[in-house]
Amino acid sequence: MKKVSKDLSKFVSSAILSRKAYVPGFQPPSLKGLIKLNTNENPFPPSPTVSETVLNEITHLNLYPDPHSRDLRNLIANKHNLSGNQVIVGNGSDDLLNLCVRTFADSARPLGMLEPSYSLYPILSSLQGSRLEKVSFKDDQFLLPVDEVIASKVNLFFLTNPHAPSGRSFDQNEILRIANQINAILVIDEAYADFATYNSIPLLKQAKNIVITRTLSKSYSLAGARVGYALAHPEVIDLLDGVREVYNLDKMAQVAAHAALTDNIYFEACRQKVLAERDRANLFFSKLGWRTIESQANFIFTEPIDSKGNSSEEVAFALFEFLQNKNIHVRHFSNHRLTDSKIRISIGTSEHMDILYESINEWKR
Amino acid sequence: MKKVSKDLSKFVSSAILSRKAYVPGFQPPSLKGLIKLNTNENPFPPSPTVSETVLNEITHLNLYPDPHSRDLRNLIANKHNLSGNQVIVGNGSDDLLNLCVRTFADSARPLGMLEPSYSLYPILSSLQGSRLEKVSFKDDQFLLPVDEVIASKVNLFFLTNPHAPSGRSFDQNEILRIANQINAILVIDEAYADFATYNSIPLLKQAKNIVITRTLSKSYSLAGARVGYALAHPEVIDLLDGVREVYNLDKMAQVAAHAALTDNIYFEACRQKVLAERDRANLFFSKLGWRTIESQANFIFTEPIDSKGNSSEEVAFALFEFLQNKNIHVRHFSNHRLTDSKIRISIGTSEHMDILYESINEWKR
Repeated sequence: MKKVSKDLSKFVSSAILSRKAYVPGFQPPSLKGLIKLNTNENPFPPSPTVSETVLNEITHLNLYPDPHSRDLRNLIANKHNLSGNQVIVGNGSDDLLNLCVRTFADSARPLGMLEPSYSLYPILSSLQGSRLEKVSFKDDQFLLPVDEVIASKVNLFFLTNPHAPSGRSFDQNEILRIANQINAILVIDEAYADFATYNSIPLLKQAKNIVITRTLSKSYSLAGARVGYALAHPEVIDLLDGVREVYNLDKMAQVAAHAALTDNIYFEACRQKVLAERDRANLFFSKLGWRTIESQANFIFTEPIDSKGNSSEEVAFALFEFLQNKNIHVRHFSNHRLTDSKIRISIGTSEHMDILYESINEWKR
Repeated sequence: MKKVSKDLSKFVSSAILSRKAYVPGFQPPSLKGLIKLNTNENPFPPSPTVSETVLNEITHLNLYPDPHSRDLRNLIANKHNLSGNQVIVGNGSDDLLNLCVRTFADSARPLGMLEPSYSLYPILSSLQGSRLEKVSFKDDQFLLPVDEVIASKVNLFFLTNPHAPSGRSFDQNEILRIANQINAILVIDEAYADFATYNSIPLLKQAKNIVITRTLSKSYSLAGARVGYALAHPEVIDLLDGVREVYNLDKMAQVAAHAALTDNIYFEACRQKVLAERDRANLFFSKLGWRTIESQANFIFTEPIDSKGNSSEEVAFALFEFLQNKNIHVRHFSNHRLTDSKIRISIGTSEHMDILYESINEWKR
């Protein structure tokens, strides 16, 4: 944040004056000649049914959307065998994460998170003026530190599963043990769950303090439409509903999400293509001998080894830069000792992955 | 809000437990056979250029939107002869109002508003846990209580101009005097400014503490797309930018707004039709002898007189119900002595207004 001059700063809430700033992954103004494997988008367009559905709404855009997004909530409820009052939808899952922070965190109610994980959590915490407790992973195997999470003195805990940036999926029994023993609301951020074998939706029946957040940005190819949802006990949904913006989801996003969620055949076809490419990526990196977490998400987290046999922050950054110069964008998280020697690569199309592999082979020579 | 059980309420932020709930105007699931004059929407569809522009985005929805909505900001800046860093866009102007509250109000920084005015302000204040000071109008002429606003002990003041629900437009010199003398950030909520003769944009050069909010929901026929913006000093914009959600405006909304804002000929044609209908409505109600504020917005605020010559809350509600039974929806604000004997009617198409007039004549018989 730039410096705020005195005549203004006297009006600014203290939480905001000391807030942290979020840095999103690089979003290029044009994709021409560019291979974008840096922000875990789906490489395929959304279901072809989206266009027609959205087009039908345009002439009615002069009217307000349904403030409750009822059709969309009911569809999501049916999909997960839940009732409509266990669902809330929002402007991307970021909207839902923010609602959780505003509802369950404040200056007296601290927030917890795994470190490293999604870098938006500390921002939301700082905007709310709540204390943040980070529970660190023991090592770069990224196994869930169950007892440390339970022992954290927080009112709200963000558990990212599958975990980012590692791609690690946590055991559901461990998650249930946390839910049962932590004295807090447990948000399970399942942004990548559609690419995983297991998810925590069955746990909703066993613990009232669980909130599951989902996004249509990854598995449904709708990052540009900003649609996410949360699943929880009806009382929790009712609380979140009271904090959200009245018309938080525009008409076009509501129907685009509805169309994409309805087209199961297209969804499953895209998902299988991503999973097949993930398998191929695993094979490629294991052949190289690079330490790679078994990913349950739509990205791969791997530790590059250079031609001299070295791994380090410098080596990882060198590969990141080498690829960038070839217009291949991946992600390097330099700010943590468990991530700085690795790179994160979103799963792209076969063609883009082939170009990536060729480039990596070239770099290694 | 429903009752929260004890096992949950212990986790809930105190501001949220005592929050107020917003009740939006009735949004019918279908418009069939219905005349909707209750939430100040534009009766005309958005510019025909919107469809094509949105359609072009659909196949790219798998990619994140520009988090800064740069093209849209620059277009808005040019339109108002400002620079790009004086503009922020959001998910409806409600998003911007909320950002102002989160940035400039908290438990130690009270919020001020005109009473009555937009019923969302108290909700945003209660969610933030800030004290609310209401500055009341003297009478139902709704003249701006300049000295009382200046004397309010607040950190942030919401001034709605043109005022809703009255439609009254305030003098720009009075607004400037408030900006110069109040020790607070002054938000001028100009949701209806495109229907008014004057607006406060020229004042931005004269006072650093002014934030002007606008929406594309009314004059640009985009209520369903949720696009609003704020204009302010670059330092204020920078503060608000740090509090907003990273991707607060989806791709479709960004380009829909861009298309609508570019099509000046269509915009002006729709605006003129609304203004002409407003003139006709003024004439109709003045012939009836109903006390009607000279509106500078896209609605009319009038005090019904029944066949016995009476005006009262009961009379206004009787007309409201009579019209509702004919599937004509207007708004009755029963919760304030300055509004309860009036009804607010959004300006609709000539056809719809004719049906309204016939129905009112029938009611009066």
